[in-house]
Amino acid sequence: MSVRSALAIAGSDSSAGAGIQADLKTIAAHGCYGTSAITALTSQNTTGVQAIHPVPAEFVAKQIHSVLDDIETHAIKTGMLYDADIVHAVVTALRTHYAGGTIPHLVCDPVSVSTSGHSLLDPQAVQVLVDELFPLAELITPNKSEAELLLSHVGMPYQISNVRDMVVAVGNLLRYGSKAVLLKGGHVTTSMSDVKQLLRERADIEVVPYGLLSENMEILQLVETEESDPGIVVDVLRQGRETTLFIRPQLDSGSTHGTGCTLSSAIASQLARGSDLKEAVKNAVVYTYLGIQTADPVGHGHGPLNHFHALVPKIIPRPTQQNPHPFTQLLIQGNASEWKEYVEHDFVKLLGRGTLPVKAFVHFIVQDYHYLKYYARAYGLLAAKSTSFEAIGSATQTIINVINELDTHKSLCESFGVTTERLENTAEAPATTAYGAYLLDMGLQGDTMKLLMALLACLLGYGEVGLWLRKQASLPRSWVVLDGNPYAKWMEDYSGAHYQGAVKLGLELIEARAAADPPSQARFAEWKEVWERCTRLEKGFWDAAMAAA
Amino acid sequence: MSVRSALAIAGSDSSAGAGIQADLKTIAAHGCYGTSAITALTSQNTTGVQAIHPVPAEFVAKQIHSVLDDIETHAIKTGMLYDADIVHAVVTALRTHYAGGTIPHLVCDPVSVSTSGHSLLDPQAVQVLVDELFPLAELITPNKSEAELLLSHVGMPYQISNVRDMVVAVGNLLRYGSKAVLLKGGHVTTSMSDVKQLLRERADIEVVPYGLLSENMEILQLVETEESDPGIVVDVLRQGRETTLFIRPQLDSGSTHGTGCTLSSAIASQLARGSDLKEAVKNAVVYTYLGIQTADPVGHGHGPLNHFHALVPKIIPRPTQQNPHPFTQLLIQGNASEWKEYVEHDFVKLLGRGTLPVKAFVHFIVQDYHYLKYYARAYGLLAAKSTSFEAIGSATQTIINVINELDTHKSLCESFGVTTERLENTAEAPATTAYGAYLLDMGLQGDTMKLLMALLACLLGYGEVGLWLRKQASLPRSWVVLDGNPYAKWMEDYSGAHYQGAVKLGLELIEARAAADPPSQARFAEWKEVWERCTRLEKGFWDAAMAAA
Repeated sequence: MSVRSALAIAGSDSSAGAGIQADLKTIAAHGCYGTSAITALTSQNTTGVQAIHPVPAEFVAKQIHSVLDDIETHAIKTGMLYDADIVHAVVTALRTHYAGGTIPHLVCDPVSVSTSGHSLLDPQAVQVLVDELFPLAELITPNKSEAELLLSHVGMPYQISNVRDMVVAVGNLLRYGSKAVLLKGGHVTTSMSDVKQLLRERADIEVVPYGLLSENMEILQLVETEESDPGIVVDVLRQGRETTLFIRPQLDSGSTHGTGCTLSSAIASQLARGSDLKEAVKNAVVYTYLGIQTADPVGHGHGPLNHFHALVPKIIPRPTQQNPHPFTQLLIQGNASEWKEYVEHDFVKLLGRGTLPVKAFVHFIVQDYHYLKYYARAYGLLAAKSTSFEAIGSATQTIINVINELDTHKSLCESFGVTTERLENTAEAPATTAYGAYLLDMGLQGDTMKLLMALLACLLGYGEVGLWLRKQASLPRSWVVLDGNPYAKWMEDYSGAHYQGAVKLGLELIEARAAADPPSQARFAEWKEVWERCTRLEKGFWDAAMAAA
Repeated sequence: MSVRSALAIAGSDSSAGAGIQADLKTIAAHGCYGTSAITALTSQNTTGVQAIHPVPAEFVAKQIHSVLDDIETHAIKTGMLYDADIVHAVVTALRTHYAGGTIPHLVCDPVSVSTSGHSLLDPQAVQVLVDELFPLAELITPNKSEAELLLSHVGMPYQISNVRDMVVAVGNLLRYGSKAVLLKGGHVTTSMSDVKQLLRERADIEVVPYGLLSENMEILQLVETEESDPGIVVDVLRQGRETTLFIRPQLDSGSTHGTGCTLSSAIASQLARGSDLKEAVKNAVVYTYLGIQTADPVGHGHGPLNHFHALVPKIIPRPTQQNPHPFTQLLIQGNASEWKEYVEHDFVKLLGRGTLPVKAFVHFIVQDYHYLKYYARAYGLLAAKSTSFEAIGSATQTIINVINELDTHKSLCESFGVTTERLENTAEAPATTAYGAYLLDMGLQGDTMKLLMALLACLLGYGEVGLWLRKQASLPRSWVVLDGNPYAKWMEDYSGAHYQGAVKLGLELIEARAAADPPSQARFAEWKEVWERCTRLEKGFWDAAMAAA
């Protein structure tokens, strides 16, 4: 999906709990790109609003045009609009920009009074809001007092006291011309038994609960019982003839500054991502609820929500053209010195020069034969641990490849005077056992990814050595000797297309696996440990060969 | 760590790529809480700045006071300050608020011209910036043209053309009174060989590279060679007598709108979290680099960075007082109907009433005996897969508990007329094999967490049944019968403190494991599948008992 963008037309809150600051955090937390047109600056903190600096209506319109002229916008939310001129300017800007077309999903939060009681909407603006903006809106999201204000007439105050009143009020509000109404019940006292009573009379009303435990969830130790009739919060959505109640437990929290901004921005973000309205409201209610529930205290009054409760650090960057293998790059660069001790080992350099003592090479190929048995068994374990025929088949193919190449390996040994009998009868060196048994231990301990991690250092390291020697050999006056080098065949094998193809496949597999299942910090640390251990075990393998010479 | 907070004093960018919008996103991406004092509104998009609405200097000061009076602030960054009055107001607000104390880490980005060439700082303001603000700053972060502007004198333009000029310029800039200077080299053409030449002459200069591949990383297929001398970007940090170069590959990207705002906010966030300056710059440079590298296109001009490249969705909410077991709650509520079919099984209800056919109960306890062998073996596998003595010991203790309770199990069987011989010789029912072998398969396939997931439904379900029956029994006119119920002992066992204690431990272990290693969406889906499968296998176990009656 390309970038989905949402525009917030609202006030600025210097303490960043509400206003465009809350809007942009919410939009970002939903994976969308947020833009803003600021209607008024507030000098504000968690204890209240200290001052307001309204922005000229024409400058509000300018900001809207700057954004819409350049950035494809999939949803728009309005918050604090402050006065009639600004409301009118917003309506005109939207009508002008989308003249002849369709305005994107528009969620209108008719902010009128701050949590701390500060007026954020000029009384004259209310009528403009109702007459001009609501008819463009897909949804309006008043709270109790905003709904009461909107439904009052001179000398006739309107009162919403319970969930039954709310259900009536959404019907009245719908007449103002928006496609739907969400009346927020945070300040309406209600209980589960009120709701149950209402539902007995109105079978057409749908209920969407969250976080309410039913019977037989005693184990969660949060038992809802008929007796205690715990506090709940109900938001009421009305679309056409459909009424839906979104119900959740009441939270006893001081972190509620900007709840309304957050909810309407979350709905707009969900709509921008393609959710239908009911799904959008459902997810936004949960997002906001968890934002309040998981908030840490900030400031001395009503603190902000935790807008990023649903995100954790990502360890491996996204692959890009410049860095197509970010996971492998992290592994290799994160352990560069040990990696170099392995792939630039004296064994490799002498082998490239053709001056490696034959005894060292013989020790190596004999032990490599033993190692290959562990290697094949590790792929057997990988097959046993796999859950798809594709993965089972691919692991099995590796075993078959190893077995098919045993004859080549034996010929290589023969050419250095090692008979198959001697090959079979030479005892395993401790470095071989350490490495081979470690592979199988990782396969026993962990999941397939851990086993793949253990198999990676061998695959990549020999690939690197092959590439490095080939590249060095191609340079003028190279230290790498090909003609008459007794180890030329070995170099060819590892720099050849066949082995390099396998390396490429393995590299892409591990990158794809890590991208599809991004590891936590703890899991990445585990993988890294396996990678580093195997890098050292590989070095140890060549150390042992050198020591044998 | 309590919430770390950073204040951004800067302009607003309606397109949200730069200004306080970029600042707040950056601060949030670093896990800090960001606040803002807006100095000027810009009507802006990725193609340029269309209009500016400066904010009265006294209102800028008001916003600063609103934030600092209420929210403990650990770092401050300044960006676009627009005119001399605003610079002066900012300095006065900070001096007044921190009179007699210490101003937090202050990073000053001397924004003067937008990427698109729009002037963002009144010429008269430059001197006020230098005279009044720089002496308060821990770091100033000019780019090439800002540094040239700051170092120019009437009739004497200053020119920075290469990395050598940069190293000289940071020394000159340091004289303006900030504790340190970071000169950004995004617009300075340089190469690796320039840097190497410089380092040969100046052994005192430290280099901090990122993303540059050294030899023997051929496998990553991004080969840096002496021949091609690829483009690099160098930022130069000067602190006291220390000079450090931060080097990275040049990126060919159109997504650079707000790079400077992002970098300075990232440094401020790192300082707020307690990093020292060099570490802060190092991490901020990488953060910004990856933000450019991973950005998706937005708008028609220079697009914004990807500020949230280092975050992925979190599946399990943070535990709170209201929801201490969020992982288990997700599992149980996510599969409520199957969970209920299991724990509210007819077998349980009839057992509670005391009317369960003896044949059903006998089938159950005989098969449970076979199941316990799988269960013990699964814990043996868990011990074998564990990496700490604590985990090995705890798995082993469970096996010992199972074995110790076999005598009790056998006595229960005897009391229903089943001899130990019959117990041993009764064939395993398919439902038993299915469940038991599934446990071992999960243990073979996955890591310890997957095995624990497989063991969870049994542990929690029997705990739930025990609690439910006990709670029901305690109600007036309960359907649960204790007196004369042949299964009373069984109920007692599972509702008793001993078993419930084990349930609590298991629940807390699984929650702690999931919190310490938060699963990706893919991994959570795997865990959920195991949980749901075991819930059905448990139900199947009781189905088989009922069918035997």
